[in-house]
Amino acid sequence: MYFKIYAGGEFIEGSSELPVKRPFDDTLFATTWLADENILEKAIRKAMDVEEEVKELPAYERSLALSQISSRIVENEQEFAAAIANEAAKPIRYAAGEVRRAAQVFAVAAEEAKRLPREYMGLDWTPEAKNKEALVKYFPVGLIAGISPFNFPLNLAVHKIAPAIAAGCPVIHKPATSTPISTLKLAQLINETSLPKGTVSILPMDRKTGNRLVTDPRFQLLTFTGSPEAGWKMKEKAGRKKVVLELGGNAGTIITPSADLKHAVEQSVTGGFAYQGQVCIHAQRFFVHDSIFKPFINDMANKSSKLKFGSPLMADTDITVMINEENALRVENWVTEAVKSGAKVICGGRREGRYFEPTILTNTRPGMKVNCLEIFGPVITVEPYKDFTVAVNEVNNSNYGLQASVFTNQLDEMDYAFENIKSGGIIINSAPIFRVDHMVYGGVKDSGQGREGVKYAIREMMEPRLLVKNIS
Amino acid sequence: MYFKIYAGGEFIEGSSELPVKRPFDDTLFATTWLADENILEKAIRKAMDVEEEVKELPAYERSLALSQISSRIVENEQEFAAAIANEAAKPIRYAAGEVRRAAQVFAVAAEEAKRLPREYMGLDWTPEAKNKEALVKYFPVGLIAGISPFNFPLNLAVHKIAPAIAAGCPVIHKPATSTPISTLKLAQLINETSLPKGTVSILPMDRKTGNRLVTDPRFQLLTFTGSPEAGWKMKEKAGRKKVVLELGGNAGTIITPSADLKHAVEQSVTGGFAYQGQVCIHAQRFFVHDSIFKPFINDMANKSSKLKFGSPLMADTDITVMINEENALRVENWVTEAVKSGAKVICGGRREGRYFEPTILTNTRPGMKVNCLEIFGPVITVEPYKDFTVAVNEVNNSNYGLQASVFTNQLDEMDYAFENIKSGGIIINSAPIFRVDHMVYGGVKDSGQGREGVKYAIREMMEPRLLVKNIS
Amino acid sequence: MYFKIYAGGEFIEGSSELPVKRPFDDTLFATTWLADENILEKAIRKAMDVEEEVKELPAYERSLALSQISSRIVENEQEFAAAIANEAAKPIRYAAGEVRRAAQVFAVAAEEAKRLPREYMGLDWTPEAKNKEALVKYFPVGLIAGISPFNFPLNLAVHKIAPAIAAGCPVIHKPATSTPISTLKLAQLINETSLPKGTVSILPMDRKTGNRLVTDPRFQLLTFTGSPEAGWKMKEKAGRKKVVLELGGNAGTIITPSADLKHAVEQSVTGGFAYQGQVCIHAQRFFVHDSIFKPFINDMANKSSKLKFGSPLMADTDITVMINEENALRVENWVTEAVKSGAKVICGGRREGRYFEPTILTNTRPGMKVNCLEIFGPVITVEPYKDFTVAVNEVNNSNYGLQASVFTNQLDEMDYAFENIKSGGIIINSAPIFRVDHMVYGGVKDSGQGREGVKYAIREMMEPRLLVKNIS
Amino acid sequence: MYFKIYAGGEFIEGSSELPVKRPFDDTLFATTWLADENILEKAIRKAMDVEEEVKELPAYERSLALSQISSRIVENEQEFAAAIANEAAKPIRYAAGEVRRAAQVFAVAAEEAKRLPREYMGLDWTPEAKNKEALVKYFPVGLIAGISPFNFPLNLAVHKIAPAIAAGCPVIHKPATSTPISTLKLAQLINETSLPKGTVSILPMDRKTGNRLVTDPRFQLLTFTGSPEAGWKMKEKAGRKKVVLELGGNAGTIITPSADLKHAVEQSVTGGFAYQGQVCIHAQRFFVHDSIFKPFINDMANKSSKLKFGSPLMADTDITVMINEENALRVENWVTEAVKSGAKVICGGRREGRYFEPTILTNTRPGMKVNCLEIFGPVITVEPYKDFTVAVNEVNNSNYGLQASVFTNQLDEMDYAFENIKSGGIIINSAPIFRVDHMVYGGVKDSGQGREGVKYAIREMMEPRLLVKNIS
Repeated sequence: MYFKIYAGGEFIEGSSELPVKRPFDDTLFATTWLADENILEKAIRKAMDVEEEVKELPAYERSLALSQISSRIVENEQEFAAAIANEAAKPIRYAAGEVRRAAQVFAVAAEEAKRLPREYMGLDWTPEAKNKEALVKYFPVGLIAGISPFNFPLNLAVHKIAPAIAAGCPVIHKPATSTPISTLKLAQLINETSLPKGTVSILPMDRKTGNRLVTDPRFQLLTFTGSPEAGWKMKEKAGRKKVVLELGGNAGTIITPSADLKHAVEQSVTGGFAYQGQVCIHAQRFFVHDSIFKPFINDMANKSSKLKFGSPLMADTDITVMINEENALRVENWVTEAVKSGAKVICGGRREGRYFEPTILTNTRPGMKVNCLEIFGPVITVEPYKDFTVAVNEVNNSNYGLQASVFTNQLDEMDYAFENIKSGGIIINSAPIFRVDHMVYGGVKDSGQGREGVKYAIREMMEPRLLVKNIS
Repeated sequence: MYFKIYAGGEFIEGSSELPVKRPFDDTLFATTWLADENILEKAIRKAMDVEEEVKELPAYERSLALSQISSRIVENEQEFAAAIANEAAKPIRYAAGEVRRAAQVFAVAAEEAKRLPREYMGLDWTPEAKNKEALVKYFPVGLIAGISPFNFPLNLAVHKIAPAIAAGCPVIHKPATSTPISTLKLAQLINETSLPKGTVSILPMDRKTGNRLVTDPRFQLLTFTGSPEAGWKMKEKAGRKKVVLELGGNAGTIITPSADLKHAVEQSVTGGFAYQGQVCIHAQRFFVHDSIFKPFINDMANKSSKLKFGSPLMADTDITVMINEENALRVENWVTEAVKSGAKVICGGRREGRYFEPTILTNTRPGMKVNCLEIFGPVITVEPYKDFTVAVNEVNNSNYGLQASVFTNQLDEMDYAFENIKSGGIIINSAPIFRVDHMVYGGVKDSGQGREGVKYAIREMMEPRLLVKNIS
Repeated sequence: MYFKIYAGGEFIEGSSELPVKRPFDDTLFATTWLADENILEKAIRKAMDVEEEVKELPAYERSLALSQISSRIVENEQEFAAAIANEAAKPIRYAAGEVRRAAQVFAVAAEEAKRLPREYMGLDWTPEAKNKEALVKYFPVGLIAGISPFNFPLNLAVHKIAPAIAAGCPVIHKPATSTPISTLKLAQLINETSLPKGTVSILPMDRKTGNRLVTDPRFQLLTFTGSPEAGWKMKEKAGRKKVVLELGGNAGTIITPSADLKHAVEQSVTGGFAYQGQVCIHAQRFFVHDSIFKPFINDMANKSSKLKFGSPLMADTDITVMINEENALRVENWVTEAVKSGAKVICGGRREGRYFEPTILTNTRPGMKVNCLEIFGPVITVEPYKDFTVAVNEVNNSNYGLQASVFTNQLDEMDYAFENIKSGGIIINSAPIFRVDHMVYGGVKDSGQGREGVKYAIREMMEPRLLVKNIS
Repeated sequence: MYFKIYAGGEFIEGSSELPVKRPFDDTLFATTWLADENILEKAIRKAMDVEEEVKELPAYERSLALSQISSRIVENEQEFAAAIANEAAKPIRYAAGEVRRAAQVFAVAAEEAKRLPREYMGLDWTPEAKNKEALVKYFPVGLIAGISPFNFPLNLAVHKIAPAIAAGCPVIHKPATSTPISTLKLAQLINETSLPKGTVSILPMDRKTGNRLVTDPRFQLLTFTGSPEAGWKMKEKAGRKKVVLELGGNAGTIITPSADLKHAVEQSVTGGFAYQGQVCIHAQRFFVHDSIFKPFINDMANKSSKLKFGSPLMADTDITVMINEENALRVENWVTEAVKSGAKVICGGRREGRYFEPTILTNTRPGMKVNCLEIFGPVITVEPYKDFTVAVNEVNNSNYGLQASVFTNQLDEMDYAFENIKSGGIIINSAPIFRVDHMVYGGVKDSGQGREGVKYAIREMMEPRLLVKNIS
């Protein structure tokens, strides 16, 4: 199966082939191409050629194109899900969920495309501005560079492409080289619309070529989802362009005695092990009240051990391999290091090739890699706490701050958590992996800057222009 | 002490004298006048003469006038408080609080006068409106009639006058005939500003003359605070004008086991007996969880019996007489009726002239007047509940719906209350008499329609006008 | 062809047959039924049974139902258009436009159903509210009564039904008895959705039965589109319920020398004669600058005389008969009266049965019925002006204020018009009949109160509820 | 006259004296100190110590402190104005205006401190989020570094300090070393409030020490107003912190035939020569329609030649010296270069020490420094145009985009300008130097990024935090 890349409105072959393998069994899933600098340059020029045209598309045309893409994704849910399951080793159930979310992002963008921010205000607050009023209209920033990672190969790309179309910005997007197929399938649906050719390009690239998305001053905004290290380095090289960074974290979760324990355990298993923990908002660090620590950890171990391993293509598979052996090895090393320093393995802990067992550790310390870095694997740490404010401090004891959870039925705890947990989102009574696509999303501290969530992403892609006029 | 009335920008004597007595000892506090139809007519004409001028005042002039009035009230806090204490028999401590709130209303109105609602939006959602956009600006409705009651003689008038000035509407205001002095003192401060003379008139009137505020079609909006009976009747006679009704209620309060009991009792004493219960959002009906019913009722009785009776002018007075003997008699009758039908008096229950003791009843039934009508006196009923949803039903078992309280530390109870209690406001962990002046305020069911709270009151006094234009 | 009526979720026959004739040739188009009081009562009860369920539908369910209805209307555009053309004698071209707009209203409502108004604010503006904050959520008012007229038999009903569903309110709607078929066809599409049966009832009724929509206190809101006389009378009888009145007008249009004259004439012909002038925002009174008065009136006469008369079912028909002879006679009388008092007929002026020629009058005076009342027929008056501010005064010289137009390329004229024309909408460089369905719409003065335009209509159907809480 | 510097809540002497001279006559105006690294470090630590306390100040306390500062500035207007006139050689009339604007910024910040952005929204757009809702609250980013230039020594500092206090962020501010006195006087007023000591520090620093404001990672936001070169270099060194850059421009102004010529000339003289053109939004490049080019340039020359030169302390002085001879020389060189390449001097053109005459050039070309760079001196270029769209292109033919003006009474020209001029603000019928302090302000292209204008500046200093919860 060959997938052409999408450059400046045309499906073309690139300079060199890019084979895409199935992580589950290392077989070839499909072949596509890498774009070289010439192809990228052509895509940039084409995008700049249509920039004015894209900017001036009426709302109904931007909205209609986005709606059509959304509907077409829904029609092809199974096919998209299979592509994701194959290229990313994501259990098909989760893959289908990702596809539905991608459709939802386009649907919401179709609505927000008609509701771009504007303001109208009186200026007559001082005599100098008597009879003056102002309009503020937001205009698209111009050409956008998007870069997305392997773990939600479709939806994290969509969170850049759909808002760009809604805002009226052309966009050149680089998917992860390990998982480009679902995005290239999306390119086909984008190409069916009446959007000017060149509005969107989707180009797998090697790192060197991809680097031009960061450095080329013709891009007005770089929007990157990926690892903190990569993200912050890009920011340094990005020059004057705006940068949105959606990076990772090591989300904390607090389980209090007033929580519904059964529900908390179910959510925590999902939050900790869904897609092998390869999720930016993976629930990594658990703080459980003394009084329920034992039952919680027992139930967790029990439930985790029942997760069904299998091919990502099977409907009943809960867990499967990680994206590559390199990552599985890294996770193994971190766990081993923790155990050597005193951590106790409650369940899991072993690696077999690309597979790493769902693993629960306790007796860990904040400085261990399994706690202080982003593990991006199926490993969680669980520690008891006595005092809620101390638990909040533990959650905050991190360089990251993306999302965090508190399971509680106490109003004062919810309020305290909201006021004091330093992260982009606090989820009450659901796991930190909770995300719906129109909510504001993004991290503080090393977890990033700028926000996504359709209307927020659109806002980042626009800038205000003021008109001052008399009123008569 | 004589106070002239304020008609069309002039302080004049009216057609007949209006003596204002101190309810506490029935002595004469001050003398003012009633306006007759001629005076009212003159005030209306003057208001209509300046209507365009008021509408076109720049924001900074409306704002400056409102600020000045606010500052001047602050400077004269003691004098205003004494007037309220004298005319309304409001303990001076509460009276001073009312004065500060009135100053705050003008201060907030000074700010909101610069932030009148406006919208700017694209219309190009369909091809028919390609390249079209719209502005929406809110314009003042025109001449306003305000009517306010005796119980907050200053601040409830201010909640009509300040928003009217902010919105750019002239206003003719009728204070209660028993308590006109604090409002006439306000008139003096309004008159010091550079607002066009005639923007505000403050006219005590007998019922017949006052009725013209309701029926005269030159008023574009009637804003009334007072009893439900009076209010709904006015609506029937108001013709085409808009009507805002801020009426009363019989606020329910739920005390749950997770609440801080000490705090709940303190709040409940204040909520039930402050200003002798003559408050629209007086806490009238208490529903207390079984498990804490006894201690709650004991603490309440204990605290209530310690409330200090005295002259409203004394700093340590907690309670004093009601506004007149007629009302004290009514309260006595309702309590007697309840007791005859089986209600039990926990404390209080006796009348002496205009004074009625702080009274706690239990064993009441929903159909008793002390429950189903607005008591507007220092009487509360307290009943136990087992199930929170049943307690919510009891709160809802009323023709009224102004404010209600829930004392709880449970998140699910707060959420359930917000979704299910049918009243304008739900106050968590404070008494239902909680009100700050910029929050939205107003009732559902028989408690009224329309909303106050500075920016909301302003909104009622304005109407949108749309401009459709091309964008090039 | 028989159409059952839609009562409480069932298609039933009513108590008496209602034959629906084609105004064009007086032949029978279809037969339906009138609902009697029993049927109405059943529909009310069913609506109240499902009220809570409708209120609690999650946004995605309300939204999905609205989307489905929108799509199904689009699929059946031709059939709906034919129904409108037949029952209302609306030229099929305009009828198809109405159908597309109705689909658009449902589409927008599907989006707004997810964006109901809410607020979150700090209360700590004074020490009394330290650490307090507030949420404001809008809740559906409850059961709604809708009444719509013959002239946009589908879309004016849809402007009540779609917002009601979006807001979470059940609604009982009465279409005009002369044109109920398109709405009953809509009922079939509504019935296909998963909305609780009883959410929407569509019931043709005689005047007496329909009157209960006005007087029955179980309806929380009456939303009426129709004639000013009928509307204001309803308000008097409506009791405590909220009333939204979308009435008529006699829209003024100013043509200035800086306007594009050709464009202004084209727009004016449409504005004046589309659907035989039976439009609430029909362009009735023209004020044309002296310097271009002659060419304007000549071009108008020229263009008007070329309008093609024919059956509403023919694609090239521009104009056809009025809704009934009674109205055609009324228009004839008003024109005759004007001519007797000195008005000059530029073109048209004659009646033949239900047909009245597109008619241009000049030399009229403001007091003539053709100017001061709503003509609701194919008649316009055209007068010259010298000074723009005088022209604005002329536009304002009316009891009505729904929409008005100014054709100009001068900024100062646009600004002056916006500040000074007293009507709900000012349309620059298009005819006053301009309306897209998400813009705010509604009149001042005798033209009504309250606003439609999807999100504005929804807002009227909801009321705010405040939650006050501590922040920790 | 000695002014201590304000470090961590104390007025102290620094490590070395900083003499502040009057540019007008090179005499000593006052003496203050430079802060060294130790003092800066102390101020940083103190700021971080109080960070939590500042963040948690209730709105009324932040608001009250801001109000008090505003009032105290008003009380000391003359003294502040004299300081600015002395240190910055700003004519006292303009200096007084700057002081009033600074007071206004604090007044607006006092209001906005109570209106920090918040959101409340339903999440139930998909079944996954049934019964879920979200709150979004904005929290202060933390410690802020502010740097402001000499030309508005008070107000440009205030645009950083007042929003920081409103947002709840401590701030360390570096004024220009040539003009620190007015800001240090402000420090005295800030110190009078009850704000925690250390909330604000005002520290003159040499470049090397000041550089730590850019590089130290403890600052979460750098907000800089100054030259484009300096600003963009700072951004490169700023690391992960957010950066707001308010840089300069070479504002274009278009004068069309429909404009009021007299008014346009008056505005243009002010826009071109106020404060010797040392203004970020100085009107530098004029494009005047052919048909009025001659009269415009004649009137400009005439009016400019009448500007009164004198000491900045004299009430009737219009123009005076530039900030230093270096800048006057630079301007002289650019003008000389332009003249050598064919530019024609209409008036002015000569330098005398720090004084440079108000100068009008024509016959210039876009590539000349007087056009393509920011002249920051009393020099304007005036060129004729034939076609409005070409004039707009000329305005856009610049690396900068801060503000621009169009003098016109044509609606289509205003609309075209708003849609097509690429700058932060478009001012209709006033000079581009128009600014009131609550309007959104900031540039595109090389003119900066991020926005000021009180509520916008506050927004940059805060970041959103999401709370997701169930509704029951």
